[in-house]
Amino acid sequence: MSVAEEFEKANIAYVAQFDKGHLPLPPGRQVAVVICMDARIDPAAALGLTEGEAHVIRNAGGRASDALRSVIISQRLLGTREIVVVHHTDCGMLTFNDEQLRGIVKKETGHSVDHFAFLPFSDLELSVKEDVDFFKKNDLVLDVPISGYIHDVKDGKITKVA
Amino acid sequence: MSVAEEFEKANIAYVAQFDKGHLPLPPGRQVAVVICMDARIDPAAALGLTEGEAHVIRNAGGRASDALRSVIISQRLLGTREIVVVHHTDCGMLTFNDEQLRGIVKKETGHSVDHFAFLPFSDLELSVKEDVDFFKKNDLVLDVPISGYIHDVKDGKITKVA
Repeated sequence: MSVAEEFEKANIAYVAQFDKGHLPLPPGRQVAVVICMDARIDPAAALGLTEGEAHVIRNAGGRASDALRSVIISQRLLGTREIVVVHHTDCGMLTFNDEQLRGIVKKETGHSVDHFAFLPFSDLELSVKEDVDFFKKNDLVLDVPISGYIHDVKDGKITKVA
Repeated sequence: MSVAEEFEKANIAYVAQFDKGHLPLPPGRQVAVVICMDARIDPAAALGLTEGEAHVIRNAGGRASDALRSVIISQRLLGTREIVVVHHTDCGMLTFNDEQLRGIVKKETGHSVDHFAFLPFSDLELSVKEDVDFFKKNDLVLDVPISGYIHDVKDGKITKVA
């Protein structure tokens, strides 16, 4: 069975208890969370979110530049007025650099991706600070509260660093 | 209190019951989910995921092209071997076109974003099919099972369309 088929089975139980069909499109808590795609992070559980409350933008690393399109839509069309950036310990982005991943892709596909920025980082706390700064200094992003956290995958704890 | 501070308070309860500190970095179910950032969707709840199982990539619309960097990292470095794309009913991406949002941003910021693609769509089912196709035809993406679903925000149900 594919994982997609497992999702379909699991979804039946979700639908059976679902009672949130009345929620409006704009996030109730007017916040956008930018957080890594890492499998060990459940943003709703870790941050106390339920359906309808927050935009959750996830990508490899939880990088700000990669989330800019979504943040503009979140703010300009759907009214969010706060941004929370979350990176985490033991992140895959700490394990490689652009040159290495470009080499892997070139070797496995035959295609050059020398133009491609995979946005890895070597200093976790600095990456959070830089991504908070990216939003703060970007003219397309509203002047709203923006904070940055590190999520520890060993104990689930978030710690503010920016 | 900022929402970030509310997150800190909620996180205390999460940490108190957290028992998954031993999980490996690669997703246990070897799957990457590409799904919209919409506040009404809780991917873990809707698809039956717990910490450690899947990469969850989220952006405005759940668009494939915007998720490519993350998918390459997910597959080449962290071993995922299936992709599930999920868009949803009543999506914000159905409510505007590039010209309109470019106009809003220009008016509110003074900056021209005529180069910026916000990736809206006008046909929900077609957008899922196109995004599945985007991955299937992209030489940088592995030849793995890729399926596409529509999530109904009224009842939480997912329906396969690609």
